[in-house]
Amino acid sequence: MSSTWGQHLMLSIFGQSHGEAIGVTLDGFPAGMEINMDRLLGEMARRAPGQSPLTTTRKESDAPEFVSGVLDGKTTGQPICILIRNTNQRSQDYGEGVDLLRPGHADYTGHVRYFGHEDWRGGGSFSGRLTAPIVAAGALCSQWLEAQGVKIACHIQQLGDVKDASFMDADPSADYAYLKQMHLPVLTADLDAQMETAILATREDGDSVGGVIECMVCGLPAGLGAPFFDSVESSLSHLLFAVPGVKGVEFGEGFGFASMKGSQANDAFRMEAGKVVTETNYSGGVNGGVTNGMPVLFRCAIRPTPSIAKKQQTVSLKTGENADIEIHGRHDPCILLRAVPVVEAMAAIAVLEMWKERQGCLT
Amino acid sequence: MSSTWGQHLMLSIFGQSHGEAIGVTLDGFPAGMEINMDRLLGEMARRAPGQSPLTTTRKESDAPEFVSGVLDGKTTGQPICILIRNTNQRSQDYGEGVDLLRPGHADYTGHVRYFGHEDWRGGGSFSGRLTAPIVAAGALCSQWLEAQGVKIACHIQQLGDVKDASFMDADPSADYAYLKQMHLPVLTADLDAQMETAILATREDGDSVGGVIECMVCGLPAGLGAPFFDSVESSLSHLLFAVPGVKGVEFGEGFGFASMKGSQANDAFRMEAGKVVTETNYSGGVNGGVTNGMPVLFRCAIRPTPSIAKKQQTVSLKTGENADIEIHGRHDPCILLRAVPVVEAMAAIAVLEMWKERQGCLT
Amino acid sequence: MSSTWGQHLMLSIFGQSHGEAIGVTLDGFPAGMEINMDRLLGEMARRAPGQSPLTTTRKESDAPEFVSGVLDGKTTGQPICILIRNTNQRSQDYGEGVDLLRPGHADYTGHVRYFGHEDWRGGGSFSGRLTAPIVAAGALCSQWLEAQGVKIACHIQQLGDVKDASFMDADPSADYAYLKQMHLPVLTADLDAQMETAILATREDGDSVGGVIECMVCGLPAGLGAPFFDSVESSLSHLLFAVPGVKGVEFGEGFGFASMKGSQANDAFRMEAGKVVTETNYSGGVNGGVTNGMPVLFRCAIRPTPSIAKKQQTVSLKTGENADIEIHGRHDPCILLRAVPVVEAMAAIAVLEMWKERQGCLT
Amino acid sequence: MSSTWGQHLMLSIFGQSHGEAIGVTLDGFPAGMEINMDRLLGEMARRAPGQSPLTTTRKESDAPEFVSGVLDGKTTGQPICILIRNTNQRSQDYGEGVDLLRPGHADYTGHVRYFGHEDWRGGGSFSGRLTAPIVAAGALCSQWLEAQGVKIACHIQQLGDVKDASFMDADPSADYAYLKQMHLPVLTADLDAQMETAILATREDGDSVGGVIECMVCGLPAGLGAPFFDSVESSLSHLLFAVPGVKGVEFGEGFGFASMKGSQANDAFRMEAGKVVTETNYSGGVNGGVTNGMPVLFRCAIRPTPSIAKKQQTVSLKTGENADIEIHGRHDPCILLRAVPVVEAMAAIAVLEMWKERQGCLT
Repeated sequence: MSSTWGQHLMLSIFGQSHGEAIGVTLDGFPAGMEINMDRLLGEMARRAPGQSPLTTTRKESDAPEFVSGVLDGKTTGQPICILIRNTNQRSQDYGEGVDLLRPGHADYTGHVRYFGHEDWRGGGSFSGRLTAPIVAAGALCSQWLEAQGVKIACHIQQLGDVKDASFMDADPSADYAYLKQMHLPVLTADLDAQMETAILATREDGDSVGGVIECMVCGLPAGLGAPFFDSVESSLSHLLFAVPGVKGVEFGEGFGFASMKGSQANDAFRMEAGKVVTETNYSGGVNGGVTNGMPVLFRCAIRPTPSIAKKQQTVSLKTGENADIEIHGRHDPCILLRAVPVVEAMAAIAVLEMWKERQGCLT
Repeated sequence: MSSTWGQHLMLSIFGQSHGEAIGVTLDGFPAGMEINMDRLLGEMARRAPGQSPLTTTRKESDAPEFVSGVLDGKTTGQPICILIRNTNQRSQDYGEGVDLLRPGHADYTGHVRYFGHEDWRGGGSFSGRLTAPIVAAGALCSQWLEAQGVKIACHIQQLGDVKDASFMDADPSADYAYLKQMHLPVLTADLDAQMETAILATREDGDSVGGVIECMVCGLPAGLGAPFFDSVESSLSHLLFAVPGVKGVEFGEGFGFASMKGSQANDAFRMEAGKVVTETNYSGGVNGGVTNGMPVLFRCAIRPTPSIAKKQQTVSLKTGENADIEIHGRHDPCILLRAVPVVEAMAAIAVLEMWKERQGCLT
Repeated sequence: MSSTWGQHLMLSIFGQSHGEAIGVTLDGFPAGMEINMDRLLGEMARRAPGQSPLTTTRKESDAPEFVSGVLDGKTTGQPICILIRNTNQRSQDYGEGVDLLRPGHADYTGHVRYFGHEDWRGGGSFSGRLTAPIVAAGALCSQWLEAQGVKIACHIQQLGDVKDASFMDADPSADYAYLKQMHLPVLTADLDAQMETAILATREDGDSVGGVIECMVCGLPAGLGAPFFDSVESSLSHLLFAVPGVKGVEFGEGFGFASMKGSQANDAFRMEAGKVVTETNYSGGVNGGVTNGMPVLFRCAIRPTPSIAKKQQTVSLKTGENADIEIHGRHDPCILLRAVPVVEAMAAIAVLEMWKERQGCLT
Repeated sequence: MSSTWGQHLMLSIFGQSHGEAIGVTLDGFPAGMEINMDRLLGEMARRAPGQSPLTTTRKESDAPEFVSGVLDGKTTGQPICILIRNTNQRSQDYGEGVDLLRPGHADYTGHVRYFGHEDWRGGGSFSGRLTAPIVAAGALCSQWLEAQGVKIACHIQQLGDVKDASFMDADPSADYAYLKQMHLPVLTADLDAQMETAILATREDGDSVGGVIECMVCGLPAGLGAPFFDSVESSLSHLLFAVPGVKGVEFGEGFGFASMKGSQANDAFRMEAGKVVTETNYSGGVNGGVTNGMPVLFRCAIRPTPSIAKKQQTVSLKTGENADIEIHGRHDPCILLRAVPVVEAMAAIAVLEMWKERQGCLT
């Protein structure tokens, strides 16, 4: 089912970009957690447009309304519904009905999928705007996980041709909280400035640019996940590929494994302070689909924003003929910086699902 | 749940490597299909060990028994259970109980996951042997899909440092049936010989090697999949990451998108013979999580087989101290050639699930 | 998961009685249906309180807001979210925090279930108020099913000691639309007046009364449902027992089968106008969990409303001692008349789920 | 999906009555439980045919083979597959292909459901024989639950016109283990003899008889289940209605509530030894879908076996005309005694699912 995910923590989204509201229902969230609303709003602000010259100037009012599941600032254990009103609906930017199919967008596939009845306005059900309530839901999960000692950090590892270092070569015990404060979170000093230059140049050119987000989840116990269909990789990738624009996901060395030998790729086990650890972490913290207690490390490839100012070739649904299209409106030259908190949210949601599954196995 | 997948076509696996039997139950498979058993056995033979000097010399009797759901050679629409007996159980190769953790394997994570009660013999629930019934189930799905005009082709795009061409640059309308006949299926002539040399050298060295499998699904209608949690990418990656050894999945240009501009990456829509097509297929046949009618194209990164002959560093569970391990027995220096039919099977299963979901939306 | 149901049509509810809003998300609903909003509101009005002297005088503003999934009055095929604001929250009627446990209510079980963190106000997540959006969702399903020739009729078969006739003895081809127009829908003339008298006497007495609702679904094709876990009876009962107050569900002769012989209970098959029918319908239209084309017939037992004016014995959570409780506020002496549209809604939802499952099997 | 149930403990069945084998896969079962195989076989023997003059003289070899998930007599936490070979397949009793539809059976609905491709032999997927592996799975769950202090007891409360007392009026703390030893488990002395007489008379008459099974689950903690779709009643009824022949399910007073007043029906809360209890248990241990710590009490109505020796009217699928049918073979005049362990098994499975769900909420 397209709008629901999870068995132990169930996430259900609703809403279209230009309908009345969008939202999310989170069922199975633990009872009794005091919500840090400031931090939650901070996460949402990172995703919101109009926050910096690097993103679209379009403003969205992303004020989340907690419709249920919270009492006196604490979660009640009942389903949490978070609603976000759509207040800045400039449908006129999008024309009347689907006609010229925007290349790289879901105009055409949505039209076929919903038999021509789809709410096509602003991307409808496909809009990246639906990630706003997901970020709110993920922030709740992150706060709960942090109280258990789990920390999630993300940075932009690649933006166009600019490449950052990897968590693989970094100290997992370091404090990466500073990444949340950066417009362009990177591990290497001054690289954000280079990326900013690249983005501005791209916008100037009426174009857009892709990249890679890298994520590390530290503090997980060994034993989360399962072989085969509930592998850590299956659960995480399922959610990550749900994020608009994600076209690749890899764990640990990922595609780099292709040119490695087993003798290089195997992470040697060692005892350290009475605990089993691995000397390297090429597997990204997962063996056989199950966490091994090392940081879970993964990367998402994100395609360049399809909405560009340049003229493009396409098809007119109305005439059934080839046509040109020029997309106006306010768009992101690079979705990566706004995608970072979404990837973090998805990671937190997937981890809490696995955590609860594991908790149910204790006896 | 670790051993079940799907909502419209439900796949459930059971068995451990060295138990009595392994198997799969496939529920929701269409009624009335005449099974081509020769072809099904052919697919299973591609996965089976001991087929060529390039794989392990270990023999497994993979004769599938159709326990239910088939009558007079036709599917009945009832759950299909396929059972494979474990007849060649040389447990003594694996020692007594888990002690020395094999690096890269799930010995440690399985031990934690199952609280020390796991059937550890030969990898237990984590064993690649469980992919045998999956190949049988996938072969059924492939046969049904082929009758609808859907064709699935896979080749080894990379093996260590040897790289093949991509389906991206190939003619999607060509006949790729020949790939199923090759021990090392490649698009480029003579490359299989190079790969064979690389594998033999690796084995000689007591080592193993990784690679990339590329897959193309042709003939799909537009409109399969859905935005967000049931995106084509989410469904496929969920199953692909369930295959032991897969550590990366990408669609279309995948990680290549990171260094592309939007103006390059967008696939222009064109009318062709009264049908909407795209000029290029960088998106890999998927926009917004939904098929657009172009070939669905994806790649899986597969890590080098963890079982190598070289001595490795590890930990002894029994002493709780560091130790060395030498893994004896008969292992694959390169799992890729045997993984190809598994990837094809997973693709077929995921596509039939999406097909049935779509069918249920027609009214 | 407590707030989600279905695999092909997925229903997800959220909200607590005295939170900001309550609502439902319906995923998988067919695209392109023009909604008859008047009829939908009519269904909701049947469930709403304050409609007659027979129900609570408490008024609820049940205006449904279609937050998503509808465009220009038609369903889009995307998730439909229906929101209902809670505007008449007189929390003061309920006191401060859970203390005196109301007998027959979920005060105690909710307190344990949610570890003392529950939103206890007005029944919280257990409130019958959550059935309001379910009725709206069910009305959509009913409208779609009606266009396929499926009709659902419900009446009150028993209210306290007053018993109506059964659909079992009625003409399934008759038009039962009139039942929707009756405050107390019954098959037998004047029986509604007797029931009204019984209800008013009960209220006068500070008490409440239970009863039985009977439902008939006509026009279903043979072949819906499945043996075992997706039997028609399993699917329907799952949803019916989710309705607050339902404590029994039976199909066809139900508990009456206990004193029947097989020779009486078996419905003889007959050919009628080239179609297989059964002469009697003791099985309630279901054999082996699958519809046989005859009307599906079931009954729900509904307990007396737990909220009564009479003084009752209970326990104080705060003191941990026995105590007396007198429940003030405006309550229904008989929930049956308001439960009728809820039962109809659940039937419609269950049928559409089975319909879609079946549709997905056609090839 | 017809053959799978559960989210935390997943049960998947396969096989047809006259195929190679039938079986069940149980995923999510706790690791490390030592199986008491004698008791498990004892439960299966209660369900098996040919155990007494009261049941069919047909013998089935129900020897369960533990194909996976068990090592050295202990559960491993991995999926448990239990296989039962079909060895006594007298297909000739059933004729060649479906022709004369057996009234009350699923011959017709199965034929429609599976588009004429069904394995019709001996009831195929609809056969009561599929309950054999379910009893084995339930026995595992019962053993685990017993170790937590949960006890499940069942008796025949009604058989035709012979009625037993109810657990409602019995002492929940008494030891009901003796019921498992009785061919016809009843609470009232000598009533089993009366029932036996009734069964033998019914068989003599070439007929069959229905009845009611009552079940009590003692020792459950408060807090299992959830409001709405995961109510205790929804979960249990879903599984109970999956048992062939069950046509009614009620909890506590069930249909008796219809003629009760709220002041009678409400169970007063009381403190007892520092614990909240209810003075009566009309609600059957469930308030608002959640256990309240009192015994969970429910009843199942079971229709008379459809297979009777008497001549019946029916339809010939081959001629499309009315016809008579006489069913030969060896059938049960009363399925109740064999259904008792099945109902117990379903109760145990449902309870363990809820138990695991609850366990996952602890933090």
